[in-house]
Amino acid sequence: MTPSDIEQAARRFATFPDFLRRTPLWVLPGSAFGVRCAEVWLKLEHQQVAGSFKARGMFHRLLANPIPAAGVIVASGGNAGIATAAAARALGVRCEVFVPTVSSPAKQARLRELGADVVVTGDVYAEALEACLARQQQTGALLTHAYDQPEVVAGAGTLAMEIEDDEGVPDSVLVSVGGGGLIAGIAAWFEDRARVVALEPELAPTLFRAREAGQPVDVAVSGIAADSLGAKRIGGIAWDVTRKWVKDALLLPDAAIRDAQRWLWREMHIPVEPAAALGLAALQTGAYVPKPDEIVCLVICGANVDPASL
Amino acid sequence: MTPSDIEQAARRFATFPDFLRRTPLWVLPGSAFGVRCAEVWLKLEHQQVAGSFKARGMFHRLLANPIPAAGVIVASGGNAGIATAAAARALGVRCEVFVPTVSSPAKQARLRELGADVVVTGDVYAEALEACLARQQQTGALLTHAYDQPEVVAGAGTLAMEIEDDEGVPDSVLVSVGGGGLIAGIAAWFEDRARVVALEPELAPTLFRAREAGQPVDVAVSGIAADSLGAKRIGGIAWDVTRKWVKDALLLPDAAIRDAQRWLWREMHIPVEPAAALGLAALQTGAYVPKPDEIVCLVICGANVDPASL
Ligand SMILES: Cc1ncc(COP(=O)(O)O)c(C=O)c1O
Ligand SMILES: Cc1ncc(COP(=O)(O)O)c(C=O)c1O
Repeated sequence: MTPSDIEQAARRFATFPDFLRRTPLWVLPGSAFGVRCAEVWLKLEHQQVAGSFKARGMFHRLLANPIPAAGVIVASGGNAGIATAAAARALGVRCEVFVPTVSSPAKQARLRELGADVVVTGDVYAEALEACLARQQQTGALLTHAYDQPEVVAGAGTLAMEIEDDEGVPDSVLVSVGGGGLIAGIAAWFEDRARVVALEPELAPTLFRAREAGQPVDVAVSGIAADSLGAKRIGGIAWDVTRKWVKDALLLPDAAIRDAQRWLWREMHIPVEPAAALGLAALQTGAYVPKPDEIVCLVICGANVDPASL
Repeated sequence: MTPSDIEQAARRFATFPDFLRRTPLWVLPGSAFGVRCAEVWLKLEHQQVAGSFKARGMFHRLLANPIPAAGVIVASGGNAGIATAAAARALGVRCEVFVPTVSSPAKQARLRELGADVVVTGDVYAEALEACLARQQQTGALLTHAYDQPEVVAGAGTLAMEIEDDEGVPDSVLVSVGGGGLIAGIAAWFEDRARVVALEPELAPTLFRAREAGQPVDVAVSGIAADSLGAKRIGGIAWDVTRKWVKDALLLPDAAIRDAQRWLWREMHIPVEPAAALGLAALQTGAYVPKPDEIVCLVICGANVDPASL
């Protein structure tokens, strides 16, 4: 995974400009967040189509491959499923989404609104995935994976390219990690030019534990961000890219994540899901302490939150 | 009111950079909104401190005048009150806010959180205002007016200056009008360089009726945006400035405003109060039809909405 893979993704996006959005980068002094550093940049990716950065990766997967008559297929009750459904609709192709019975009726309804065929099966995600893979074998549909496909990682990396194009290279970029597709794309873009910091909930320490073990391992996940950061095992691409380019991996308690989520809403009227609040939580709790002259970039990666919960 | 008044406001803001925020300007193709025009720019002023553009005007009023020991005083249960309280807190001066008994407990609590002394008096706004003015006579506190003071209008105008500084002059700017402070600031900045369009709810047609009558007149106001666009009479400064520079004044039904508010939330995860949705309502209903090559700027002016209502 290299910058040229990401440039290729951006060129593919340019051939179909009416789907993805170039999201704003908001430059503020550290003091706006009560943080002692020169600047904090917010990449407002929660305003991306379908409410998260996932639209980039899923759309790229679809653009980069021939799409069979059976369309596309994915197992996900969360942002990856919504992003796949939205991308499929934009391209006018069929989409099947497998979700476990525990997934919320609101999310299932959203998937149906986006034109997807929703298959509710299995008590847990792993069972929905199994059914999805079996079905894919039958139909030959194009499978999208939430984080561990090269097209998906390269698509996510275009977000970093936009940051650089807008304001240059920040000193550091704080990135939430689930299966690692997002951080892999960002780190593959910046390489050693920016310090890319991995952030995970204490209750979903997928990359953190892999680094302790020296290899990807299965991890128990729970907590407030589990629906988006709850991948059980770090993706293979993310493992390779982060081993090379990411020096810091930090864990944050759920309470700090919740506080940062609420702060973003109350003080800046930015609605985010917990997964998108880890960067601010790291700054406001002092888990990550920037230098006084540092420019820190936070990736505000998803907005799929029930507004009533804010 | 001229561009140099607005430049002076911006210079005053630069002496105290830790309060106001330079809000992002989001550039999108018209197609992102289903609108046939070249570009739509969103000035994301709902992310301003205290949740609306009002912070600019109130802060400027405070910076431009000596503040007596009695501090500042305002009659407003809405954004002007919240903005005055936030500005007073930033400058470390006392703030009294008069609100009528009908104002929501949540807003009163927010004012108290911001350190204001809240005086709840009178059944309607006019009575709270009367009590406020009597009290001001007693204490000599600095009075802030929600829209009809030169400092307040010039402060609002800095928003237009930022737009130009970021992306240049758009072809048109669609602006919601209550008492007219916002549109006056914007029109005074752009003069005849952009087409500034005034938008009001059918149920709060303050500028529209004044233009019919040939002079400011009292108007009955109601409807979903009345708490922020419900000034009964257009301000004198706004009357003068808009007569000179604003050619179009349009009315929108509440249902269209509500639809646009919901669309912004559902499709872009931007939380706004009804007053901030008129521009999109005008575009999406065809009340305002841009040219195919037009660049239209919408001022997303306030976020003080109960998230549960989205
Ligand atoms: C909002 C949000 N942030 C972050 C992530 C983590 O992304 P990744 O799995 O690529 O690490 C996800 C994954 O679903 C997400 O939805
Ligand atoms: C969010 C919002 N938009 C627009 C307006 C209208 O501003 P003006 O009274 O300056 O016309 C207000 C006034 O309170 C407001 O709060």
